[in-house]
Amino acid sequence: MSKEITSRSADYSQWYNDLVIKGSLADYSAVRGCMVIKPYGFALWENMRDALDKMFKDTGHVNAYFPIFIPKSLFEAEEKNAEGFAKECAVVTHYRLKGDPAHKGKLIVDPEAKLEEELVVRPTSEAIIWNTYKNWIQSYRDLPILINQWANVVRWEMRTRLFLRTAEFLWQEGHTAHATAKEAVAEAEQMLHVYADFVENWMALPVIKGLKTESERFAGAVETYCIEALMQDGKALQAGTSHFLGQNFAKAFEVKFSDKENKLDYVWATSWGVSTRLIGALVMAHSDDEGLILPPKIAPHQVVIVPIYKGEESKPVIDAKAKALAAELKAAGIRVKFDDNDNTRPGWKFAEYEMKGVPVRIAIGARDIENNVAELARRDTREKTSVSLDGLAARVIALLDEIQQAIYNKALAYRDEHITRVNSWDEFVKVLNEKGGFVSAHWDGTAETEEKIKEQTKATIRCIPLDNAQEEGVCVLSGKPSKQRVLFAQAY
Amino acid sequence: MSKEITSRSADYSQWYNDLVIKGSLADYSAVRGCMVIKPYGFALWENMRDALDKMFKDTGHVNAYFPIFIPKSLFEAEEKNAEGFAKECAVVTHYRLKGDPAHKGKLIVDPEAKLEEELVVRPTSEAIIWNTYKNWIQSYRDLPILINQWANVVRWEMRTRLFLRTAEFLWQEGHTAHATAKEAVAEAEQMLHVYADFVENWMALPVIKGLKTESERFAGAVETYCIEALMQDGKALQAGTSHFLGQNFAKAFEVKFSDKENKLDYVWATSWGVSTRLIGALVMAHSDDEGLILPPKIAPHQVVIVPIYKGEESKPVIDAKAKALAAELKAAGIRVKFDDNDNTRPGWKFAEYEMKGVPVRIAIGARDIENNVAELARRDTREKTSVSLDGLAARVIALLDEIQQAIYNKALAYRDEHITRVNSWDEFVKVLNEKGGFVSAHWDGTAETEEKIKEQTKATIRCIPLDNAQEEGVCVLSGKPSKQRVLFAQAY
Repeated sequence: MSKEITSRSADYSQWYNDLVIKGSLADYSAVRGCMVIKPYGFALWENMRDALDKMFKDTGHVNAYFPIFIPKSLFEAEEKNAEGFAKECAVVTHYRLKGDPAHKGKLIVDPEAKLEEELVVRPTSEAIIWNTYKNWIQSYRDLPILINQWANVVRWEMRTRLFLRTAEFLWQEGHTAHATAKEAVAEAEQMLHVYADFVENWMALPVIKGLKTESERFAGAVETYCIEALMQDGKALQAGTSHFLGQNFAKAFEVKFSDKENKLDYVWATSWGVSTRLIGALVMAHSDDEGLILPPKIAPHQVVIVPIYKGEESKPVIDAKAKALAAELKAAGIRVKFDDNDNTRPGWKFAEYEMKGVPVRIAIGARDIENNVAELARRDTREKTSVSLDGLAARVIALLDEIQQAIYNKALAYRDEHITRVNSWDEFVKVLNEKGGFVSAHWDGTAETEEKIKEQTKATIRCIPLDNAQEEGVCVLSGKPSKQRVLFAQAY
Repeated sequence: MSKEITSRSADYSQWYNDLVIKGSLADYSAVRGCMVIKPYGFALWENMRDALDKMFKDTGHVNAYFPIFIPKSLFEAEEKNAEGFAKECAVVTHYRLKGDPAHKGKLIVDPEAKLEEELVVRPTSEAIIWNTYKNWIQSYRDLPILINQWANVVRWEMRTRLFLRTAEFLWQEGHTAHATAKEAVAEAEQMLHVYADFVENWMALPVIKGLKTESERFAGAVETYCIEALMQDGKALQAGTSHFLGQNFAKAFEVKFSDKENKLDYVWATSWGVSTRLIGALVMAHSDDEGLILPPKIAPHQVVIVPIYKGEESKPVIDAKAKALAAELKAAGIRVKFDDNDNTRPGWKFAEYEMKGVPVRIAIGARDIENNVAELARRDTREKTSVSLDGLAARVIALLDEIQQAIYNKALAYRDEHITRVNSWDEFVKVLNEKGGFVSAHWDGTAETEEKIKEQTKATIRCIPLDNAQEEGVCVLSGKPSKQRVLFAQAY
């Protein structure tokens, strides 16, 4: 069967690729490192996007759209940001192709259409946005600006993975401007909590909120807040970041405002983003060897109804009942698909929707209808039960809630089992090698030690948890004094 | 006052720019030909996008996302399409910047990071999509494919106008694949009707549905369907197109399917799109010298409530009543804004919301509350009435419907007055020069005559209306026999 997938134990990485491709989430494209997000994957992204968008609007944000291109001179303006992204950016140098005189039907870049100034395809939009804010902000009355943008961005990554790391990806980027540092910090923290709320309550994925160390910070940020999730192979994945940018971009673009006392000061900034990378996290955190497991709240189809025909004469009766059921569920607000395709058998359909992670499957045949029942199967546990058709919608709604919670609980239990406190270097290495997950260890606070640990174990400091307990100890590597534990892990 | 705008009669073109900028729809950017869509303009686009997206989904389409880059070799594959877009495309040639050894803090393109094959930033996505469909289509069972994409595209236009013609713009592009020519034609026609339905019923803008002549067709299409609208200066604007692509792209990308008899054939295609250009049409069709006039169905705010404070003591009472009103309207599904900003006076707010085209303004002061009334002002006619606060929501809903219809009727009357039948070349020129609008005239059907007319009058054939009456006549320019009239106009 073409839909067979590699098991996690055989090859975790191949298992992931199989799920993405065979689960119809995405496909490779003809463009190096870029993917095609297929309709099923895009429907999932739409549900995620819509939920997030509502959360952004509920916290006072509005959407806008800024150009995809950043002139090189603007890109250069904030030095650290430029350094951070220059190495991996797509550069537009010409604005025309022309017929190749040497090969009929072929095109070449027209050397006469060279741009005076090269354009960078945005890897992130701070530069173009702050250059615009300069014209929008004069006084404290113009603040705060609370803008978000849904957009595509390009980072020329050398090693790409579907969803996890692609040259082009879709994301949202919030860019806010404030009159005080305090207000900007509060905004950055608020958005971190919004992200955590979304990832935990919609994606059913527990996260740890924390701060990045200096070496892991966003290029140009004063402070980077992050949420970190754990995948089933024991590796961590950064699921979202929110940055307090201080006055770095305001200074780079000369964005000043006059306060109530008419004093001029630079504007304070934040930026924050999550991307289609979250889909990669979702796949890796919940799915199993049969295919995807999607949380009901964001699954494109929450329920699929599969008719079990036995002979031609049963079809009209089953179809009528199945359609009535579908209408009943839809009226109750459930995203339901009735698959009456004649070309495939029920067994094929069962496997297909398990692969695609549809949370609930309802199978119904002629005998079921006589008995006023249907077979209800949940994807996460693969349990089946025969249930009455009376009050089915209410039952399905309750089941979807139960599944949402069960998926979260499972991921949480796994995550909590995989936070290990260690007090020595031997333990540190042993846990990383044998168990994986987060390692909670003392660190001396230097970038040097952080780098050495990364070199020796591939583990990085994922975050310094928010509200971290203060505790005397010594760094696992250097033995120098430390006042708190931080979370290390190998990561995507 | 900084918000003053040029009148239509003084300078139509400047009037348009003033509305877009001072109405807070968009702003210029640092990137040649690219604009910033401001939050108010983007909220308008979101309303348009959401309405269209629902219509697409209701007609069986799904969304997906394809890469922004098209490798040059794919871009070349469909010859006419390549020819049509090569002259104005942004080309990525490098994937890295590096420090400029000559100027500290500056960056230069790294010559060592030259791409093996240049990438074109999509001007339209047929090439990358059909190259992908090749892998998705083997049999008639894989058809139809009914995919839409919301995306940004880039066309390196030399002369740009905010919304009407920008180097980067936002749009949706449908790309469908079918087993028969008949089905593809039906799809192209269906989408034309969907566009007409949307533009007329949501944007309150009457359109003429028709076919493009060969010289005005989309590059690579067999047939281009279009909807044409009329602006207040008598120029036409193409508001949407839907293309029957025949087997052109299937042949260029070798996309074949086996039919029920196991015979191989090339797949039939359509594509169709509308863009942020529609916002330009909206502005130019309805607005007046006081500012924007937005149809209630897509206006970001349908109602604004402006409190009229007289002294500090009236504020709490007015605010409480205004908030209750806002809540009542919101509960009735109305998009309402309560502007309690203390920094600006009512007169300023009145002008501001007239500029922004908010369909209904409710002004309320202490005396009004005593009398249980409010002042209701409609933006389109600028009529004001005092109305009872009892049952206000129902009254506002009815008024919004009335305004929507009135805006449409006004545009329709103007459009119908500006379709002129002419039978001679003198008349043709005279009408174009003195009255503008659509000129309905006989044409001999040759591209040569079409080109001559364009050279002499700047008028192009906007369309051959669908279900056009057949009628004997002679071409206004060449005097050769003609079987039908076509619609000419100067156009954006």
